[in-house]
Amino acid sequence: MSLTSIELSNGVGRRSDIAVIRARLETKLAELLETGPTPANLKSAMDHALLAPSKRLRPILLYLVSEPDDCLTETALCLGAAVEMVHTASLILDDLPCMDDADMRRERPTTHKAFGQATAILSAIGLLTRAFGIIAELAEVPAATRTRLAAVLATASGHQGLVAGQEIDLNARETLVDQEQIENLNWLKTGSLFVAAAEMGAILRDLPGNRVEHVRRFARHLGLAFQTADDLLDKTASTSEIGKDTLKDGDKATLVSLFGARRARLTCNEHLQAAERALLDSGVSVGPIQAVMDTYLRAKIGSE
Amino acid sequence: MSLTSIELSNGVGRRSDIAVIRARLETKLAELLETGPTPANLKSAMDHALLAPSKRLRPILLYLVSEPDDCLTETALCLGAAVEMVHTASLILDDLPCMDDADMRRERPTTHKAFGQATAILSAIGLLTRAFGIIAELAEVPAATRTRLAAVLATASGHQGLVAGQEIDLNARETLVDQEQIENLNWLKTGSLFVAAAEMGAILRDLPGNRVEHVRRFARHLGLAFQTADDLLDKTASTSEIGKDTLKDGDKATLVSLFGARRARLTCNEHLQAAERALLDSGVSVGPIQAVMDTYLRAKIGSE
Repeated sequence: MSLTSIELSNGVGRRSDIAVIRARLETKLAELLETGPTPANLKSAMDHALLAPSKRLRPILLYLVSEPDDCLTETALCLGAAVEMVHTASLILDDLPCMDDADMRRERPTTHKAFGQATAILSAIGLLTRAFGIIAELAEVPAATRTRLAAVLATASGHQGLVAGQEIDLNARETLVDQEQIENLNWLKTGSLFVAAAEMGAILRDLPGNRVEHVRRFARHLGLAFQTADDLLDKTASTSEIGKDTLKDGDKATLVSLFGARRARLTCNEHLQAAERALLDSGVSVGPIQAVMDTYLRAKIGSE
Repeated sequence: MSLTSIELSNGVGRRSDIAVIRARLETKLAELLETGPTPANLKSAMDHALLAPSKRLRPILLYLVSEPDDCLTETALCLGAAVEMVHTASLILDDLPCMDDADMRRERPTTHKAFGQATAILSAIGLLTRAFGIIAELAEVPAATRTRLAAVLATASGHQGLVAGQEIDLNARETLVDQEQIENLNWLKTGSLFVAAAEMGAILRDLPGNRVEHVRRFARHLGLAFQTADDLLDKTASTSEIGKDTLKDGDKATLVSLFGARRARLTCNEHLQAAERALLDSGVSVGPIQAVMDTYLRAKIGSE
């Protein structure tokens, strides 16, 4: 019985089932870095960044969208691990002194604080390339599907996705003056990888094109909600509460800084509702994903 | 008529034919970064690094090993461009202040000197992810071949290849005391991507396994010869002669610093001879590749 079918047949205790998926994912992440001789310092840095405590939202999202049967459970975990490696690589780099200059991440010193900048950067490249290696080698997936998965991840993480978002965030944030521009940045920085994760889950289960589009729309709204919730938390939580530096945004334009917490919270909730409608349209099981949204988003943004 | 068949039928003027391949490659590199809206500063940084004057040895090697017919000429150029993007990404990062702290590369200011460290790092990630996107989307190549190509490139560039080499170079060079250890580092830093390029050419033309092994052996020796030639040049040439900072190696252990220029030159020539023997064994046309070796290696290392 696959993890998802446990969740669905239970109907209750969803949070603990998500904890089961997360635990298996943690094991998979560690396994997938054990590929043979690696300089010890580099391997420690990769482990430090990748195996630190994390919600693992993107791989869990991928897993829940894919609703894997027994044959595909391991594959869904591997594919989620690949997405998590790309995400972790982006965090290592975002935290560097020349970018956000952060000291804490995932309840640990940032990778450059613990291992120096050079090894931190190299560990990010190691994780990024490993992600594409994992996808290329997925044994249970037809090669044509693997190339489609790799293309989705490359587009989302590259110079028209995550990388573009970080560039705008660092060097062009002052040009953003309205909600559309801020949300375009949020899309690049966060939405693109959420959408890639969900789309990869949809591709893995071979959903038809129109349902993949609903999945993409769902994840786009989820990603936008998540980034706005993150901006809200940056203003209100402490480092010890969320495990990373807060108030790093400074005077950066966000929905919170431009329009205030109240409107940002409203926008966040609108995106969550739109995400749920799109999820229903996609035909993917709503329950487990809704539980994730409730736990990690609704509970965090709070009410007015 | 494909470029390689021009070369083979001519039998003379090989250098200019390689110049033709290089010119077509330059066009392809520029084309492959034109994928749609990208932050202008980021795009400029990627162009600055990727389109600077370069020998393009790795993609030319891939091309010459693949000996593409008319149907595969464009594909061989795309695949070469992907390898060149990975190589360029590694140069951008190696040049950073926290690594080799170099000011000049490929006759231009290094990318971080021209665009700042953050954008330099992002442009490297952009190039790296684009490389895997290009392979995933190669229209003329069966999907199973594309996944094989991606796996080869990921392994060569990741934490057991290029990334491992740079980590050892930066943080463990002082532990290297004999030729075997130095050459293991040279293998990781240079040989692994030379071998990947040649192997990808062999995979593209669908060579059988034993011939692929000969190609790998050829490229391994070529890469080792190339790295030793590079170490020799670092000691003897000026920045204006080779377009990048020299004497960056300082007291780093290399074959040159450990055993002197004479023995390093001898080792380099031994690797070139071994490379030629392996190339003959592989059945790949020797002429064009030998011309490249003569022009870019034998002419550079000189005689005693």
